Formats: sequence, C-alpha cells, structure tokens
Amino acid sequence: MRPNQIQTRLRAGQPILNGWLSIASSYSAEAMGHAGFHAVTVDMQHGMIGFNDALHMLQAISATPATPLMRVSKLDGPEIMRALDAGSYGIICPMISTAEETAALVSACRYPPKGSRSFGPSRGLLYGGADYVEHANDTIMAIPMIETVEGVENIDAILAVDGVDMIYIGPNDTALAFDGQVVGARTRAEAAIAHVLARARVAGVATGIFCADGADARRRLDQGFDLVTPGNDMGLLKTAAAQAIAQISGDTLVQPLGAAGSGY
Amino acid sequence: MRPNQIQTRLRAGQPILNGWLSIASSYSAEAMGHAGFHAVTVDMQHGMIGFNDALHMLQAISATPATPLMRVSKLDGPEIMRALDAGSYGIICPMISTAEETAALVSACRYPPKGSRSFGPSRGLLYGGADYVEHANDTIMAIPMIETVEGVENIDAILAVDGVDMIYIGPNDTALAFDGQVVGARTRAEAAIAHVLARARVAGVATGIFCADGADARRRLDQGFDLVTPGNDMGLLKTAAAQAIAQISGDTLVQPLGAAGSGY
Amino acid sequence: MRPNQIQTRLRAGQPILNGWLSIASSYSAEAMGHAGFHAVTVDMQHGMIGFNDALHMLQAISATPATPLMRVSKLDGPEIMRALDAGSYGIICPMISTAEETAALVSACRYPPKGSRSFGPSRGLLYGGADYVEHANDTIMAIPMIETVEGVENIDAILAVDGVDMIYIGPNDTALAFDGQVVGARTRAEAAIAHVLARARVAGVATGIFCADGADARRRLDQGFDLVTPGNDMGLLKTAAAQAIAQISGDTLVQPLGAAGSGY
Amino acid sequence: MRPNQIQTRLRAGQPILNGWLSIASSYSAEAMGHAGFHAVTVDMQHGMIGFNDALHMLQAISATPATPLMRVSKLDGPEIMRALDAGSYGIICPMISTAEETAALVSACRYPPKGSRSFGPSRGLLYGGADYVEHANDTIMAIPMIETVEGVENIDAILAVDGVDMIYIGPNDTALAFDGQVVGARTRAEAAIAHVLARARVAGVATGIFCADGADARRRLDQGFDLVTPGNDMGLLKTAAAQAIAQISGDTLVQPLGAAGSGY
Amino acid sequence: MRPNQIQTRLRAGQPILNGWLSIASSYSAEAMGHAGFHAVTVDMQHGMIGFNDALHMLQAISATPATPLMRVSKLDGPEIMRALDAGSYGIICPMISTAEETAALVSACRYPPKGSRSFGPSRGLLYGGADYVEHANDTIMAIPMIETVEGVENIDAILAVDGVDMIYIGPNDTALAFDGQVVGARTRAEAAIAHVLARARVAGVATGIFCADGADARRRLDQGFDLVTPGNDMGLLKTAAAQAIAQISGDTLVQPLGAAGSGY
Amino acid sequence: MRPNQIQTRLRAGQPILNGWLSIASSYSAEAMGHAGFHAVTVDMQHGMIGFNDALHMLQAISATPATPLMRVSKLDGPEIMRALDAGSYGIICPMISTAEETAALVSACRYPPKGSRSFGPSRGLLYGGADYVEHANDTIMAIPMIETVEGVENIDAILAVDGVDMIYIGPNDTALAFDGQVVGARTRAEAAIAHVLARARVAGVATGIFCADGADARRRLDQGFDLVTPGNDMGLLKTAAAQAIAQISGDTLVQPLGAAGSGY
Repeated sequence: MRPNQIQTRLRAGQPILNGWLSIASSYSAEAMGHAGFHAVTVDMQHGMIGFNDALHMLQAISATPATPLMRVSKLDGPEIMRALDAGSYGIICPMISTAEETAALVSACRYPPKGSRSFGPSRGLLYGGADYVEHANDTIMAIPMIETVEGVENIDAILAVDGVDMIYIGPNDTALAFDGQVVGARTRAEAAIAHVLARARVAGVATGIFCADGADARRRLDQGFDLVTPGNDMGLLKTAAAQAIAQISGDTLVQPLGAAGSGY
Repeated sequence: MRPNQIQTRLRAGQPILNGWLSIASSYSAEAMGHAGFHAVTVDMQHGMIGFNDALHMLQAISATPATPLMRVSKLDGPEIMRALDAGSYGIICPMISTAEETAALVSACRYPPKGSRSFGPSRGLLYGGADYVEHANDTIMAIPMIETVEGVENIDAILAVDGVDMIYIGPNDTALAFDGQVVGARTRAEAAIAHVLARARVAGVATGIFCADGADARRRLDQGFDLVTPGNDMGLLKTAAAQAIAQISGDTLVQPLGAAGSGY
Repeated sequence: MRPNQIQTRLRAGQPILNGWLSIASSYSAEAMGHAGFHAVTVDMQHGMIGFNDALHMLQAISATPATPLMRVSKLDGPEIMRALDAGSYGIICPMISTAEETAALVSACRYPPKGSRSFGPSRGLLYGGADYVEHANDTIMAIPMIETVEGVENIDAILAVDGVDMIYIGPNDTALAFDGQVVGARTRAEAAIAHVLARARVAGVATGIFCADGADARRRLDQGFDLVTPGNDMGLLKTAAAQAIAQISGDTLVQPLGAAGSGY
Repeated sequence: MRPNQIQTRLRAGQPILNGWLSIASSYSAEAMGHAGFHAVTVDMQHGMIGFNDALHMLQAISATPATPLMRVSKLDGPEIMRALDAGSYGIICPMISTAEETAALVSACRYPPKGSRSFGPSRGLLYGGADYVEHANDTIMAIPMIETVEGVENIDAILAVDGVDMIYIGPNDTALAFDGQVVGARTRAEAAIAHVLARARVAGVATGIFCADGADARRRLDQGFDLVTPGNDMGLLKTAAAQAIAQISGDTLVQPLGAAGSGY
Repeated sequence: MRPNQIQTRLRAGQPILNGWLSIASSYSAEAMGHAGFHAVTVDMQHGMIGFNDALHMLQAISATPATPLMRVSKLDGPEIMRALDAGSYGIICPMISTAEETAALVSACRYPPKGSRSFGPSRGLLYGGADYVEHANDTIMAIPMIETVEGVENIDAILAVDGVDMIYIGPNDTALAFDGQVVGARTRAEAAIAHVLARARVAGVATGIFCADGADARRRLDQGFDLVTPGNDMGLLKTAAAQAIAQISGDTLVQPLGAAGSGY
Repeated sequence: MRPNQIQTRLRAGQPILNGWLSIASSYSAEAMGHAGFHAVTVDMQHGMIGFNDALHMLQAISATPATPLMRVSKLDGPEIMRALDAGSYGIICPMISTAEETAALVSACRYPPKGSRSFGPSRGLLYGGADYVEHANDTIMAIPMIETVEGVENIDAILAVDGVDMIYIGPNDTALAFDGQVVGARTRAEAAIAHVLARARVAGVATGIFCADGADARRRLDQGFDLVTPGNDMGLLKTAAAQAIAQISGDTLVQPLGAAGSGY
C-alpha cells in the first residue's frame, strides 16, 4: 500500500505542511498538491464542495506528491467511510468532545475486528494499491478536532482512546467557545490550546492546527505542533488578489473588498 | 440595460483592473469579483473551463461589482454568440491578425443590421435587463488580441475597423512571435507592444494587456495602458501558496514545486 | 451585512412572495430570482438538487433582488451550517415537532454564545459582506416547518423558543398527517393550519406556507400568512407546458401527461 | 431501430408539437418530454447548455415518449456527429443560406456512402437499438434553419438538396434580417416566411417553425406548418412565474421583472 | 403506476439479475440497464457517486427495461426519501441489525398512515406516472441488508417486520463480521448466510445477495436466492480490461495492476 | 519534464497497449490507467465527454502509470491547444487526408517557431513539470488518423511531414470509406491498412490502430503495429456484463440486449 507521508514524516520527526481546500476545483487542488505541501485536506465541513467535486479533487491530489486527507462535515460513520472509499488517507473530524465520540471516529476508520468500517474499498484500491485492505487499518489516520470546551476538558480521555493518530485544533471555534469571539483577545482559547498541546505531547499523540497564514503556521510549529495548515486556498487567493491590487493602485486607486478574513 | 463599468471608467479616464479566471469554480470567480477588480474575464482559451463551468462563473461574477468578460478560444461566431448569450459584456478574442478578422469579431458581437449576431439573448436578459436587446450593440465590447507578427503589422487597419472597443495585448504570444522565446530577452516584442500602444492612442482606441503580476501591471498602467490584468487566479494562488510555505520553512524546510511560472 | 429582505418586509408589514426551486439549474434559479419574488428557496428535501448545484443556485440568486433561503433535508446541524456557509439567509427545516427540535434548529443557525454554529463563513462573507460574522446571528432566519400532528400539538412550546423567526407550514404533509390523504377533503388539516396560524399571531411570530399555485397563495395571504410560496418551479413549468399544448391543440389534439399534480 | 415519431406523424399527416430546452437540467428535460410534446429539442445554440448537460438531457428525454432532437450551434460536421452519437434523432442547424451548406448538413448526418458521418455510434446504439447503424441514415433527420435573406433567396435550391427532411424557420433572426428589428412590424419577414412555406409545400418538404407561445403555434399550424415549437422552457417558466405573481398581487403588489420577452 | 419488474418476476417465480453501479456515469448506467439485467442498483454507500450523479443515472436507467434501485449510505429517513423522490423503486439499506431499524426503513419508504415518508414525489411522478402517490406504498420495495452478527441473530424478528419486501445479503461485511477477514475461509459467514436464507424462505420473504461475479451469482441462484448481483460495473470493467491485456500480451508482456479484487 | 512513456517504449522497440475512454468518468479513467495500459486516450470525438469531464479524466490518468492522450473531435487548432494545456501528451486527430492537414496538426502541437501553439501551458505545467515549456515540443506527440480514401492515397506525403510522431488507423471509418460497410467483408480496407502500415515502416514512422478487442489487438501487433487499442471502456463493460449474464443464465434465462457492437 502506498505509504502515508504524514506518518513517514512524523516518525522522522519532520514537520508537516498541510494545504486546505475549500474551492471545488480539481485544478486548484492539483496545484496545491504540487505547491510543496506534504498533505492536502479537502474540507467538506466549511468548504464549498460536494461529494462529486471531492472525488475529482482527491484524484487530482493523487497525481501530486501530497497525501490526501478529508475533513468530514460531522461524526457520521457512513460519511467517513465514503471519504475513505474515495481515497482519503485520513479523516479530520470536527467538534469531537468526548472519548466516546473519539472511539466512534476511530471505529469508522478501521475494518473489523478493529472497527466497524464497511467493506467496499472502491477508489482506495486504485490509490492505495492492491494490498489496500490488508494495510488500511494501519495507514488511515483518525484525527479528531478539539475545539469545544468539553473537548478540552476531556482531552486526556480523548488522547487515551486507542487508535487516535493525531489531534487537530480548530482555533476559531475554540475562540468562540472559550472567549465568545473570533475577533479580539483569545486569552482563554490560547490557554486551552496550550493545555491540549501539552497533554498530547505527554500522551505521545501527534498534533495539528489550523492557522491564519504562513507566519501563524511558523509560530505554531515553534510552539510544538507537528502539522500546520497556513489558511485555506480561498484565503490564499483573496490575499494574493488584494496584494496585486494594492501593488497596482498604491493604496489609493481601489479598496479591495473583504480580502482579509476568509480564514477559519 | 445594466451599464458596462469598463466603458464608464474609460469615459472617466480611470484605469481598469481586470481579474482573470482559469480555475473552473464559481466560488473563486465570485471571490475575484469582490476582490476590487472592475472587470473579471473568464478564459476559455487557456483556462481549464467548460461551457457549463463558464455559465456558473458568469453568474457568480454577476453577484459582484465586477463587469464580466470572456476570452473565447478562437474567432468563431457561434462560440462568441454563446458567450454573449451567457451574459458576457465583452469578448476578448485571441490571435487576431487582420482587419478582416477584426471585422468578423465585431460582427459576431452585434445584432443586425450592425452585425450578424443571432437572436436569442437568454441569460443576457437576466443580467443586462429587459432592455438588453435595445442596448446590447452599444454595451458589448469587441476586443481583439494583438499577439502575432501579422497583427502588429496590420495594427492600423485593425484599429480602423468600425466597432473595435479596445485592443488587448498578449505579451507572451507576442514574445514567442517576435523573440522566439518567453524566457529571456523580449526586445523585439516590447518594441512591437510599444508600437501598438502608440498607434492605438493615435487612433483613440482603448488598450489592455495581460501582465505577469501586480508590479508588472503597475508598469503597464504607467506605460499608458487603460486596462491591466495582474496575472490569473492560478498564478495568484500558486504565488500565495509558495509565499506561505516559504514563511513557514524559512527557505530551507521545503522547496515549492513550480510555484512560479503559471502566468501567460 | 447585506440586509435580509424578508425581515425588512416583515417589519414594514408587507407580504413576502417566495419562489421555490426543485430544478437543479442556476439559470432557472436566476430567472426565478428576477421574476418578482422577494425570496427564493432552494429545496434540498424534495428538490432534485445536490450540494454543488445548490451552491451555483445560491450564487445565481445572489445576482438578483431576491433573498436566498434553503430548505434543508432534515434537522442536522452540519447540513444546516453548510447551507448557511454557502450563503443562505434562512433555513426552512422540515418535520419539526417539538420545542427541543426547534431549539436545535435555532442553535445550528447561531454562532456561540447564542448557538452552536461552527465558524467558517466561507461564501457567506462574499454574499453578506465583510461584517457577516458580526451580524449573521441577527440576519439569518430559523424557520421550522410545522407539518406533523405532534408539531401542531406542541405549537405553543415551539413558538416560545427563543430565536424562531418564522414558522412555515407544509400543507401536504399536514394533510397526510391529519386526514390521511393529499387528494380529497382536508378538513382536519385546515383546522390545524388555522390553529397554528392563530397561535403564531398571538405569539407574534411570522408565518409562511407552501401553496398549490398563485390563487391558493392569494387565499393564504388573505387568511393572514406573511409569506406565501405559489408552488415550485417544476409545477410552474408543467402548468405552462400543459397550457401551451392545450392552446395549440384545443383540448383534442393531444392529452398532456401528468401536467398537474407536481406541487407539494 | 426505435422509430422516429416525427417521421411517423408526418407520414400520417399529423401535426408535431415540439418542446424546446434552454435550461441545462435533465429533470426539466424529462418533464418536458412527458408534457405531451411529440419531440423535444435540446438547444446548443442559444440554450445555456454544455455537452455534458446535453447528454443527460437526451437520456432523460429517452425515458419519455418524445423523440429527441438537437439544435447545434453551427454547421460543423464534428459537432453534428457528436450530437448524433449522443442519441439525437435529428439535427436542427441554424443559419443555413445555400444549397452547399445544406448538402454539408445532410452529409454530416449520414454514414458513407450517403454522407461523411464518422463511425462510432456510442449512445445511439443504446437509444436506437442494436440495428442503429443499419437504419440511422433513414431515421436521422437533417433540418436546416432558414432565417437569412440569402437562405430565403436560395430556398428552392435548398429544398432540392437530396436528404433534406424538413426545414425549420427562425422567425426572430428572419425579422432581424428582413425588417431590421425583432420588436415592431415584421412585414417583410412574414412575407418571406410565407414564401418559404409555400415553396416547401410545392417541393414536398416538411416545415417547422419556432413560435412565441401556444397561441402563436396554433396560428402557425393553421398557416400550414407541420411542426411547431411554442416557445422554450425558460419562456414557459417566466410566463408561469409572472402569472402566479400577478394572481397573488392583483397587479399592484409587485411588478414582475422581465417576465416576457425571453423567447426567440 | 409503472410496475416494478422485480415484484412481477418474484410473483412469477423468476430469478432477478441485478446490475450494480459504482461509476458516476449516466452513460455506463444506461448501458447496464440495456445489458439484460432486470434491475439496476445505484450504490450510494460504496459507489463513487453524488446525488446529482445519481439523479442522472436513475434517469438513464429509466430509458431502459431495468427497474431502478438505490443502495443508500445509511438508515436515514430523509436520505431514503430523496432516493425515492428521485425515482428509485426500492431501497437497499446497509447494516440493518434489528427489527426496530427494519421498521424505520420500511416507514421511510411508505407514505402515512403506513409510514412517515414526507410528501413531494418530484421525479417519482415522471417515472412512475400520474398515479404514483396512489400506488407508491405498494410498488416501492424496502430491502434491509443483513450483514452484521446482530442482524443474523435477529433475523426472525427482522423478517417479521410488516412491509419487508426482500432481504439482501452483503457477503463481504458478513465475512468481516463472522470470520474477521474477506480473504480466506468464510466458514462462519457462509453458515450465517445459509441460515438467513433458510429463515427467509420459511418466512416467505424474498432474498437477494451481492456476488463476486457471474459464476458466483449462478451458485447463489442455485442455493435459492431470488435476486443476484454479479459484481459491480467497476469489477466488470477491471476484469474485462485485464482479459484484453492478457489476450494481447500472452501473460508475459504486461502485468495488470489490481484488476481483480474490486468487488465487495 | 515527465517523460512520455510511448516515446520511451517506441525507442526500446516495445509494443504500446492503449486504453480508450468514452465514459465520462474520472473513476473509470483512473481504473483504466491502472489496468496495465501504457497509454490511455480520452476520446472527444465519439466519446460521451465534455471538456470539464475530460479535465477530470486527464487528472485521474495522471495519478496512474499511463501516459494521457486525447483524440480531439476535429482538426481545429484551438481545440487541440486546449487539450494540450489540459495535460494531454499527444493528440490523435481524426480524418486527416492531406499533407497540409497533417502540417496543421503538427503546428497546433508545437510552440513557435516550430509551430503555432499559443502560450498558456496551464495544467501542462502541473503534469509535465516546471520545465514543460522547454521540452513540450519534443514530448507532445502529433498523431494523424488515416481513415479516408484520400488519406490513404496521400500517405507518403503525410508521412513526410516533419513532426509526425505516429499515424493511427481508424479501421471502421476506413471500412466505410473503402468497402462501404462496417459489417461484412473489408477486403479493400484491409489492403489499404496493410499499404499504410508498409509505407509507414519504410518512412520510419510509428503506427497505431483501433482494434475490436484483445484478440484483434494481438493480431495487429503481430501484423507490425506499434500501438494497439483493444476496444474502448464501453465495449469492455458491455462485453463483461454480457459474459456475467450468460454465466448466470446459461444462455437461456435472459438475452443480453446489444452487448456486442459498441466498438468502433
């Protein structure tokens, strides 16, 4: 089975740069896969993407060096299994708050007897190879998102669930949950994030986080995270368009509308 | 009929910033339309876009302040008419080399008796308004691309064609045609471009040009062009992704693949 | 943030005409948005529409004066959040029977601390504007459908849920529930509808209802409803096709198949 | 091979009602195919339809009693052959002005030695049946549109081309060509149409025409046309939406925008 | 209402051959519908298919003699209702383990008072006919999949649920559940399958099963199953491609990759 | 630039097995790319494929070991250039009859000064690599189809055109052209094919041919062809479905409809 580059780099102690896709285009997905990211995530929660789009995007990523992940819209076994059958090598699942939910996520990602994944590997066989079924349980990563108060409170129990391959932090939902806002001070949220990171390191579980941009991602790597996502494709595009327009107009000709603020 | 913002700005002596779409996504198209551009062009020649994608993109642009243009794949009346029926407010037509071709382009953009456009305004009625047919001939812009040796040689005849609303220069094809390369010195191509610009100003015809990026677009405005395109969406995305990765890695962690060089 | 025209008209005591989309086409969606409706609803429950289609349709509606709503397929937080991220300004949720379900619907439509909506406004930012996040909780409408026996029985508790912006009645499911049929007498269902309407007016909650056609919608407005939906796009098309054929054939040439009965 | 219902009815001296599709939806296409039309035409010239949409629409029509036709965007052999391979049972080709163009149209619709159609029946085999290739030349109809001054002038030569199965008149392009307008008097165009009809009857060639609506179609049948198209799907939908809104508002509540005038 | 060919054949004691679709193409779906199968199933669980694809595929099947079924991704009322509104004549629902789940499946497939299906027949009216609503409860088949240990244990209770029209066995998930593997001996799974088959025959409930290929399907018919599925479209395509390559190369030129093993 | 496996194998004297795609699915395209073929061709002439489908299919093929080719619908420079920009590594162009047409094909495939390809490599950069522009002229293959009487007569002139990388024979159109039929004896066509093959070998130009199936492809390799296409995906699927049904029914239970005869 084709190896999971995230696992390879984690074992080597190397950081992982993760691209994030919200634009339903296989062409931009392929470009992101060639941009230098080690992993690229198709976002089915906040991305503007249907299943058919996601399939094309996973195929496009498969033509690049990047390992494909998917963020599903919710903790739902059949949706997770479809994401895996389509060739995702890992599932980032939003809003995980308890050990029980975590175990359900892991179970959906594993064939029996380790879990409850239904058999029908479909495109997984094409991407992973003929021995997909034999190795899938060891190669597919189950990645709960920690972004609720309850999730932070239960972090030790979550980390103790057998089969958790990484936790991934959603800082904006964490800010809403802890500080009641995404704009302005995030004191409590940052403390929660630091706590979760510390507990994960103690537990020996890898950590990832969504970041506002490249500079923020650099900071998060320095803070100790293993995988960082420097914003999403839409944020990158908006920022680049605003920069180009500013270069042309010298700040005075036009005022870019809503160029900032797309990230989450 | 909804006014054509390019015409409005040209009459006011204001520069026009034009976004360029090669990604078949209505979501990124809408973002580009809100980015601050006065016009946004759907590229059917080198863009990775089918007719159904283009329809969705034109609709998305219609939800923004930007005026929608389309670059067609070739000088072909029926293709041009479909682009107009779908709501384009102007046609950028590649590889125009003669006055006869220019007249054919203009004719395809105008209802009889001024031209040969077939009746069936379709989505034009929705975007333009109920009086679309009455005003379309005055609102739709016919924009030949000058990018061949023959086109440069025939520039005065081309500019003299009744109904040419703007000429648009493709500097890369011009470089291939005049200097035999896109990488390296473009001495002859730049001379040709300067010549075409000068003749257009004498003839009182507006001018536009594709640019490598924002800085290049600034230079072209200063050179005297009326409309500039600071690269395309794919180029913006690649550049932004490369910047983010460089910010994270500090030049050493990873080497972005092919992040530069997408423009044309 | 772009205002919600339904709220504006409700505050002014003006009736709201709501178009209803079951055809997965951004072109017909845009036409419906320009037809004179104040709101247009994309139907993900009984419409033949996938998420990617819905995105294109919401964008097309955004190019018209109509405010976009979505009827989701079920009470499911992540599905509702995706509808909002895609730019819907209100959620019509079918088969709501209890105050608890109503509160879950409202919660899914509001960012914390008022609710549980996950952060990631995506296209909402493009349609609503840069201040979307600040005003979304006040602009997005949560609209439970009352169409079950239990829902009618619990109407006062449902109306008392904080954040219910309107209730919407599905008369056909109500007829099935109360009279056991959609064809024939609907005595009990009409009594239930009148009861719900009366209680909503006492509670000061706005009311909407699906109607068979324009004449039925007129009646419902006279009955006291604030928002009426005169059938869906498919019903309009079938009726118009049947009328055209009848005009041609004078009742005898051909017999239109199934032209009536598409509504629900 | 499945029979062509247009031919069957022509032979029986029965009129043919033809639906017309400009909305890229297989669902509305299927509804139109069940509405009572004997033929339904997918419009690739002024319709908002790509090839992939057209395929789905032809399949949907195949699930109904109606015979599928396609109006291609232009006289182009390969485009015509693709339409046939996708299962069209006839080609309506716009802007035919000469016998030579007519012969080219016929040739594109026939396998050698009668014509130049390339072999590769694809979906034609599924819709037509296993004996498709044997009977295609006799079942597929070649239908030039007469809508230019030159076309009217050359009508006798066009009608004399071997293999012309029907001529189809585009009255709006004819009006533009003969009267210079689509709104207002069409005296010359109507005279031209009457002339073409008379010559076709003399030549024994069937005739069809696009009409504004059902009433207009009734008039055209009475005038002697064999096949009539009472507007397109978009026109039907707009009219029905305007009627519904008028029923609700009683002319005063709202003013439908652009509900009339979509036809061509 | 158009009859359900599966019911017709069951009543006549005739076996049913069922095609299975995992490729999101209406063209291959139509070909499968013409291949000689009596039913064709669109697989939304392990197939690479979105809702919009499924709609096109159901329409394409409707143009063939085969009766359309859908395997949904999970036991979810609204998803099942959408499948029915889109024209499916039966629902194969995976992972049914209890009588309660079975009853929920049946309920989702029936209009009140027999069940809880929401009214809005949509495309069902086009495919089934104008009397769809009257006969849908008797024509739509509810088909639980038995493929878990619990499902086998509860088989008598499941078979006793009023309205179960057939049970369908997933042998691969059964193998995972009973033998812990899909490759190698399936002793316990085969015993479970034989037990379920025997109990179903006693209960007078029809039985179906997914098979590896045609030879396996033959065996299952001989074993007593009423409906057999000889692998899916992807398995057929892979096998045929491998055969063609083997014919060319004579076993030595190339080694087909992963040609076997796509079934489930 | 990523090497063209066809060129590599030709230089090594190895035969090339070429898959052929007519089904608009990226999933079946990817499966064909993994089946063992050295090249896979997306057929835009007789395949049921739009540009957007083709893009997804080329991306899917890029995730496999096979080299992507495209058969365009006609000799049209802009269509050919779009196919190349989308990542095709070669163009099979139908119905080439003269040296002039051949030269036009070659020119469309080459950047100046060798040809007239317009600059805008788009996805070519992603698939080929950052040095795409430098090496494209040497890597992209121009492959005229010989399938007309005139083409056979002009074969020496065609073969003499500088830049022809291979000729490809369409035996069915050749049969129609030479023998007037596709069913029955093809004596003249086979003689013409043998002549063309002989002349190509003398000229040192590689040869390819479309075949009915694997056995036919084996024969053509033995006859001396370098590249063979054992039917298309639809033919493979139909044959496999017919085989499966025959295995089940033992020739008597059901009669497969039109399972044979899809090839061309």
